[in-house]
Amino acid sequence: MGVVIPLDEKKNQAASVKPLQDLTKADMERVNQLILAKAGSHVEMIPEIARHLIASGGKRLRPMLTLAAAQMCGYAGDHHIKLATSVEFMHTATLLHDDVVDESDMRRGSSTARIIWGNQASVLVGDFLLGQAFKMMVEVGSLDALDVLSSAAAVIAEGEVLQLSVAKNMETTEDDYLAVIRAKTAALFAAAAEVGPIVAGSDKATRKALSSYGTNLGLAFQLVDDVLDYGGKAADLGKNVGDDFREGKVTLPIVLSYRRGTEDERAFWRSAIETGENNDVALEKALGLMTKYNALSDTIARANHYGDMARDALAPMPESPHKAALLEVIDFCISRVT
Amino acid sequence: MGVVIPLDEKKNQAASVKPLQDLTKADMERVNQLILAKAGSHVEMIPEIARHLIASGGKRLRPMLTLAAAQMCGYAGDHHIKLATSVEFMHTATLLHDDVVDESDMRRGSSTARIIWGNQASVLVGDFLLGQAFKMMVEVGSLDALDVLSSAAAVIAEGEVLQLSVAKNMETTEDDYLAVIRAKTAALFAAAAEVGPIVAGSDKATRKALSSYGTNLGLAFQLVDDVLDYGGKAADLGKNVGDDFREGKVTLPIVLSYRRGTEDERAFWRSAIETGENNDVALEKALGLMTKYNALSDTIARANHYGDMARDALAPMPESPHKAALLEVIDFCISRVT
Repeated sequence: MGVVIPLDEKKNQAASVKPLQDLTKADMERVNQLILAKAGSHVEMIPEIARHLIASGGKRLRPMLTLAAAQMCGYAGDHHIKLATSVEFMHTATLLHDDVVDESDMRRGSSTARIIWGNQASVLVGDFLLGQAFKMMVEVGSLDALDVLSSAAAVIAEGEVLQLSVAKNMETTEDDYLAVIRAKTAALFAAAAEVGPIVAGSDKATRKALSSYGTNLGLAFQLVDDVLDYGGKAADLGKNVGDDFREGKVTLPIVLSYRRGTEDERAFWRSAIETGENNDVALEKALGLMTKYNALSDTIARANHYGDMARDALAPMPESPHKAALLEVIDFCISRVT
Repeated sequence: MGVVIPLDEKKNQAASVKPLQDLTKADMERVNQLILAKAGSHVEMIPEIARHLIASGGKRLRPMLTLAAAQMCGYAGDHHIKLATSVEFMHTATLLHDDVVDESDMRRGSSTARIIWGNQASVLVGDFLLGQAFKMMVEVGSLDALDVLSSAAAVIAEGEVLQLSVAKNMETTEDDYLAVIRAKTAALFAAAAEVGPIVAGSDKATRKALSSYGTNLGLAFQLVDDVLDYGGKAADLGKNVGDDFREGKVTLPIVLSYRRGTEDERAFWRSAIETGENNDVALEKALGLMTKYNALSDTIARANHYGDMARDALAPMPESPHKAALLEVIDFCISRVT
């Protein structure tokens, strides 16, 4: 199951994360070593779970943002290694807690930690990684970086709670949904990018440019993720088509389909999402309505809008390989869906 | 059900937390205001849960330690208010996550947040309060205080994971159990007391004295709590006698009873704790064995030992009403059981 998503433009097809990976390769090796070192504990279950999460992959996009942003701003020290590791730990802690909250069984094609070790360990190891993240930030000793990252931690948690309140609620507007993903996804992208210029001692304008870049990249990234749940390369990502639908998650494709639909169609959405009548037949119908109302391609159009904002946020920065790589990541994030 | 705990000495009977409360009264009012302000959020569920936790009481012993320690060290600013509030938020976040991990229904005589709002909200609001705690610490701007509190956060989580591995395991030694409570309880008491001299700019010896006082007070406090679960004034605390027993928690009274018992008695403990044969008849038998082997009174003796260590940790400090109040709190914590 799943749909083919029509796209107006093919310009993004060749975009890649590889330039960013190449520029940050040496630093990322140090981050990976630090991840293993700081996830260590004499309490056996902690390194076990940490290794599971590390082995199950992911692109490590967030720490790469920190590293590239610091390099782009001419930073020559090594505080960015600890901050990038902190960012990845904050992300991992969020994933562990999210899987418990969402009762997820699979992530990136592997069983989730909560399935293997239980909800209890997932909650507590998440807390441990968050504690380690803060310890590393404190070691770096930058109050500005601490401010940005601790504020992000509070906003992320607030966004997750907000998400609970919009779950299974068909009255969710596009603005409501944006408020959720701005908090739960974009805030960490923004913080990851902003701590780069902070350790580099860059000026306020540069900090704001990278923070805004991160915010809008995060929004684009999340919207594309939401589309991927309904088709595209979802299977490659180890996700099942329609997981969000079955969990009653009201993402933008559903918001658009609902608001553009007829009364009968809206009744269908309410029974599927709010009452939970979401078997495979219902999913087929949902995919049909998304196609009918261009809900997936328009979600991608929205993602492109935020991608454009991210691009303009970086525009005043001097040209450099790092700037080019960060710009290409925008296209890469969006091209995942094509 | 429950047992009367024989005590050799009655010296603690009159000890009270009141001198500490009186000395910190004005500051605690500011802490309570800050708790309400910082638990606020436009996400409705967050202040609701926070108010529930605040209304359900508790003595706020940890923030009072921070306030009294700062005052004792001659601190005249107001950073201790934010740090005391951070300490209470860290504690509250731990309670929220603990209740999810332990699947607890009741705390302090009220339904737990997870029963009213669900596990999901409890996990996420805990994360939110932890984020707010770190934000406040960052506002204070003391890297030493941040170091102490973020290290405590990591140790607490590590202790909670460690607790999972000793749960339902009758091979747990007294040392194993001490390692758990040193991390999950004593670390926050120690940090709460140590950030007082830190904001006051006191010397290393004073910091170490208060940290050691906090550690040992925390150990005594937790051991007494474990005894209270089997009798004493448990009912007053809104707890049911034997909750720990039914949850298979191996606390010191069980460790001592098991190790002092006959082969048959050890078989009973294994079936009760490891296999879960823990009905009311089994609880009566468990209480009988605890009495037979003086396990409860000897746990109190152990608590007195840590109380003595806490007292000696403070001994070099100059006499003051604050020192007297902190010393009296040791006796108060232990007297809760008599």
